[in-house]
Formats: sequence, structure tokens, C-alpha cells
Amino acid sequence: MRKSSMPPTIELTDAEHGLVVRIIDQTLLPNKLQILDLTTVDEVAEAIKSLRIRGAPAIGCAAAGGVALAASRSEAKSERGFVSGLYSACNALAETRPTAVNLFWALKRMKAIIGSRPALSPGEMRDALIAEAREIIDDDLQRCRAIGANGAELLPEDACVLTHCNAGALATAGYGTALGVIRAGHEQGRVRMVWADETRPLLQGARLTAWELQQEGIPCTVITDNMAGHVMSLGKVDAVVVGSDRITAGGDVANKIGTYSLAVLADYHDIPFFVAAPVSTIDYELESGDDIPIEQRSREEVTHLAHQTETPVVPEGVEVYCPAFDVTPRELVDAIITEKGTATPPFAEKLAAWRDE
Amino acid sequence: MRKSSMPPTIELTDAEHGLVVRIIDQTLLPNKLQILDLTTVDEVAEAIKSLRIRGAPAIGCAAAGGVALAASRSEAKSERGFVSGLYSACNALAETRPTAVNLFWALKRMKAIIGSRPALSPGEMRDALIAEAREIIDDDLQRCRAIGANGAELLPEDACVLTHCNAGALATAGYGTALGVIRAGHEQGRVRMVWADETRPLLQGARLTAWELQQEGIPCTVITDNMAGHVMSLGKVDAVVVGSDRITAGGDVANKIGTYSLAVLADYHDIPFFVAAPVSTIDYELESGDDIPIEQRSREEVTHLAHQTETPVVPEGVEVYCPAFDVTPRELVDAIITEKGTATPPFAEKLAAWRDE
Repeated sequence: MRKSSMPPTIELTDAEHGLVVRIIDQTLLPNKLQILDLTTVDEVAEAIKSLRIRGAPAIGCAAAGGVALAASRSEAKSERGFVSGLYSACNALAETRPTAVNLFWALKRMKAIIGSRPALSPGEMRDALIAEAREIIDDDLQRCRAIGANGAELLPEDACVLTHCNAGALATAGYGTALGVIRAGHEQGRVRMVWADETRPLLQGARLTAWELQQEGIPCTVITDNMAGHVMSLGKVDAVVVGSDRITAGGDVANKIGTYSLAVLADYHDIPFFVAAPVSTIDYELESGDDIPIEQRSREEVTHLAHQTETPVVPEGVEVYCPAFDVTPRELVDAIITEKGTATPPFAEKLAAWRDE
Repeated sequence: MRKSSMPPTIELTDAEHGLVVRIIDQTLLPNKLQILDLTTVDEVAEAIKSLRIRGAPAIGCAAAGGVALAASRSEAKSERGFVSGLYSACNALAETRPTAVNLFWALKRMKAIIGSRPALSPGEMRDALIAEAREIIDDDLQRCRAIGANGAELLPEDACVLTHCNAGALATAGYGTALGVIRAGHEQGRVRMVWADETRPLLQGARLTAWELQQEGIPCTVITDNMAGHVMSLGKVDAVVVGSDRITAGGDVANKIGTYSLAVLADYHDIPFFVAAPVSTIDYELESGDDIPIEQRSREEVTHLAHQTETPVVPEGVEVYCPAFDVTPRELVDAIITEKGTATPPFAEKLAAWRDE
């Protein structure tokens, strides 16, 4: 298997001064590869909110790492203070971003350990939380490889694959979900090239997906989001693969704003539309996509072009609308690819079966 | 009728030092309202190529003005040199941009006068060319008002109207085509608000449409292009109105990249999709949209965010695709609105009738 030249997106590692959550600061890519060592829950929360680390599975990993930090670096004098600090950490991390359910899934796993308190001493709990966070991170990489293998077989031969945003190694502990499918497909010789939507407002496609594919030597052409339909109409897209931030029990898919438009366009052009995500992305509490909370971001991400300009490109005083996500209804999705296999419509039964496995 | 607070997009006017083509430098909007006096054909050609003046009807006006400048400021010693300079001017202007047919339509009108040479002295020809250019510019404003009146009656009551790029006063001699329909609709109380796609790569929606609507006091919300489908899915768009750079005899429509995606999305959501343009936009020589030449722009417009950044947001070495236009096939168009009336599918007969009027 080809060794990636990228550093890990996220690690929970022992630095000289103690345990750290080590991440790539993704706001600086592609122009600067800066590694950050986060040492407090506040720093982790800030890194998630400001998108230094982003992507639903990676957010889950970061949240788990944040709780492990809280345990490792606790200065509480009592067991009660120690545990209360852990719950505070969970609450602070839960409030960072509302849409990606992997965040809540990871915190639930960490809270299950905190909740087993009577059985564990603070030291044991600290070790258990660190081990759990490491397992969440390590497992994420393995899940992505399984997603890649499951998805690659759905790709046509010699495929031109369009993707949106970054659902890559940078959005996970490594390898990626949508880009995992593309990586595995490329390893098998099935992927000729990738169309990367630039993905306004924050340009994760132009900045991150293009960078990541370049590191891997996978041919990539960047387009503005509004070119996708045109490229499809020219017969130059054989499949669309995207990630997800939350999938409902019925198979509706929340993902980066613009995904819904792509799904409609793919449907119109009879191009298969695939969603690649770990099972932790499935929110079994929600049946319909209408119930997924959609994060609204600040107008500056639009008006100042992803914080790249000092002067706004939109006149002051003009309204801006800035949802971070949209919901693609199940009828526009051809397959949901997970580490446990691939679901095709109708999705509900297969998704439910994975819950119980 | 409400008086616009905007200066004219283009004027052919006598300055102290002679005839000038006076334009707004649209590359500096919305942050700076800079008026430029162009005094040579080269300056006019540069202004068209670099999009200081843009929009299909405005490009036609600018080209006519450029030929008038060539006549007015000719230093030729002979009648032959004078006429040859005029043809050179026409050729230089014809090579500025390939897609907007109004450019060639305007040059054809100017060349018809140059071709009548034996009947006119150089002085008479100069006066005739200046008068013709002024007529093209003045008529354009009147045509836009007629387009507005014809289109406004198609809008639903209390409509939220989505538009793409800028087909406004800034894209014409004044009032606009798509924004002419919106202006007229707003004057009649039929338009509640406008969704303005930012329109990557060059952000004409964010920079120009938002500015122009703000000047007029028409409520406007800017979105990134990839939000259009999401906003439609929420039931918040009642009609889409766009301009055009070239319409074929059969009714296929070339317009700013992203228009095609919008048309597919409007079709999926059963939202009427209207194209507003003067009859000069119809290319009766072409039957199919496949034959429309599509201008490719430089990668920097994508990588440097419409020239707003010094460092690229796409990694160096990664491919970028940058078509300026796409083609929307006739079956996705609900009406073509011109100064002569409105055509509905099938378009060919009505469009042909306008040619002969």
C-alpha cells in the first residue's frame, strides 16, 4: 500500500510537556503546513470552532482527544472535582459545532467511561479515557480503509470522479471517507482523475482536497462549484462521491453546503451519487433530514472570501446567508458506503442492521 | 419612474481633450466607484478583455464606442488610411471576447457604415459612426426598459427572485436585462427580494448585482453559488431570471458559468426559469448551443479569488478548469424575454419572426 507523505491529521501523543492533541492547522493549507500541539480543552474547542481541524470523523477524534487531555492534565484536588472537570470538558466540546453527529458519538463513548466512575479510580479513569481516545482515532483510520475498499468496487472503470469539500485524510484520522473511496479506486487503477469543487465559502476543496490529492499523486482538476453541472453535461463525470456530517435513520444526508445541488445535478445526468461515511455518522434518533440542525456561519466567510481578503467583496449592509450544510434527501442517493458495507435504497433496514452489529 | 443614483455604465461623450468612451471601472466595485475616460481603441479593447466593462449588451456598446473613437481621433493623412484604421479597430475589438454575440452585432452595424464609404466623406463617416454608436447606446437603455416591462408581468406576486452574475444596469447601457425585469417588477410591487448568487470566479453577483440593487433600494441577499439549490429546496425562490451572452436560433442560451446548473435546479424544483436579453443577443447563424464558442479564462481568476489575493488558494501545479460560460439547452428555459416580447417553447418561430421585424 502506498505510503502517504502527509503527517497525521490528528494524534494523541506524549510531548515533552505532557499529553497533547497534535493536529495540522488546516486553516493555513495549502500554503503552510503547520503542526499544532493543543494542550487544553479550550484549545481543542477553539480549533474545532475555527476549523483548524474539521471534517465529521476528525471532529469526533478531536473531541475524544480533548476529553483525554482534560483527564491527563486535570489539576483537581478531589475525585469529585476531577469528574466534574471531565463533564465540563464534554459540554464545552459538544457546543463547538452542531451538525456533525460524530462529535456527539465520540463524546458519548467518552462519557460512558466517565459514567462508570465507581468502578475506576481517577488514575484508572484517566488511563481508560486516553486509551479510548486513542482507539477512536486508530479505529477511524481502519474504518476509512474499509470504506475505501467497499466503495472502490462501485466505481466505473477509468472513472472521472467528482467530489465536494474535503472528506479526505484531513477530515478523518487518515485515508478519508469519500477520498478513501477515491484512494482505493486509484490504487486499483479505476480512477483516472478527480474533479474537486472548490467548495465556497471556505474552499476546502481548493485548499485541502487538491493539496491532499497532489500529495498522493492522484490527478485532480479544481473547478468552482458552479462549473459542476457544466462538466457533467460534457460527459466528463462518471461518479460523484461525497462525505457526510450526519445521516438519518432513513438515509437523508447532511453534508457541506452545495452537496444537495450536486445530487440534483447528478440525478439529472444519470450519474451515480455515493455517500461515504463511517457508521458513527448515522443518527439513529432522527428519521428525517428536516430535523438535522444546520449550522449557520458568519457572513465574513462569504464577504471576505474565506478570510483571504481585508476588504469585503460584498457591499456593506447587504444581507448574506451562510448555512454550512444542506440536506440531500434519500431519493437522490444511490449508495451509502460505510466500513460495514454498502446500503442501497431503501436504506432504513440496512442502516438499522448496522446499529445492532 | 425612480431615478437611479448610479452614473451611466457607458457614455460616448465629449471631454476637454476630445471624444471619450466614459465607463465605470467595474473591476474596482463595490469598494471604489471609479470613472474611466477611454481615448483609444486599445484602451477600449483592454477594458473589455479585463472586464472593466462587461455584460453582453454593454460590450456591444463599448465596441461601437471604440469604433467611433477610432474615427474621431484618426490621424490618417488619406481617406484610405482613415478607412483602413477603422477596419483595424473593428478587428481589434472583435478579438476581445468570443462568446457575447452583441459585440459582433454592434461591430456589424458600425461596419455597414464604413462599407458605405463611396457615399460619405471621411468627415461625414466620422459623424455617422459617432451617431450610430450613440444610437446603439441610447437604444440599449430603451430596449432594457422594454425587456423589464415585458418580463415583470411573468413574475409571481410577492416574488423572491434568484439571479446569477450581473445582468443589470452595469451590464448594459442602463436598467439591465435580468435586473431590468427585477427593477420593473419591484416598481410594480411584485418583487419582495432578490437572491444574488455571488458568481465565481469573478464575483459579479457579490460585487456588482448586490451593489446595484443596494443603490436602488431593492432588498438583496447574497449567497454562494452552491447555496442556490438549498434555498430552492426551502421554497424560498419563486423565479429565476438571468441574462444571456448568446441565444441560438433554436433557443439554447449561453450565459455565465453556473447558469446551466441553476436551470437544472429550477427544473427540479418546478421554479420558472427566465432569460432576459435584447434581440441583438440572438445569433441566427447558429441553431445549436453546442456551436457557441466558450471563452476560457485564466486560472488565476479561480486560484487567486478574482484577483483578490496575492497567494493562491489552490496548490501550485494542480490543474484548474475555467470556462467563462456554459450553455443551457432550450428545454430548460421557460421564457426568453426581449424588447420585442416574450417567447415560450418552442422558441424558434418567435425568435425568427423578431429577426424580420
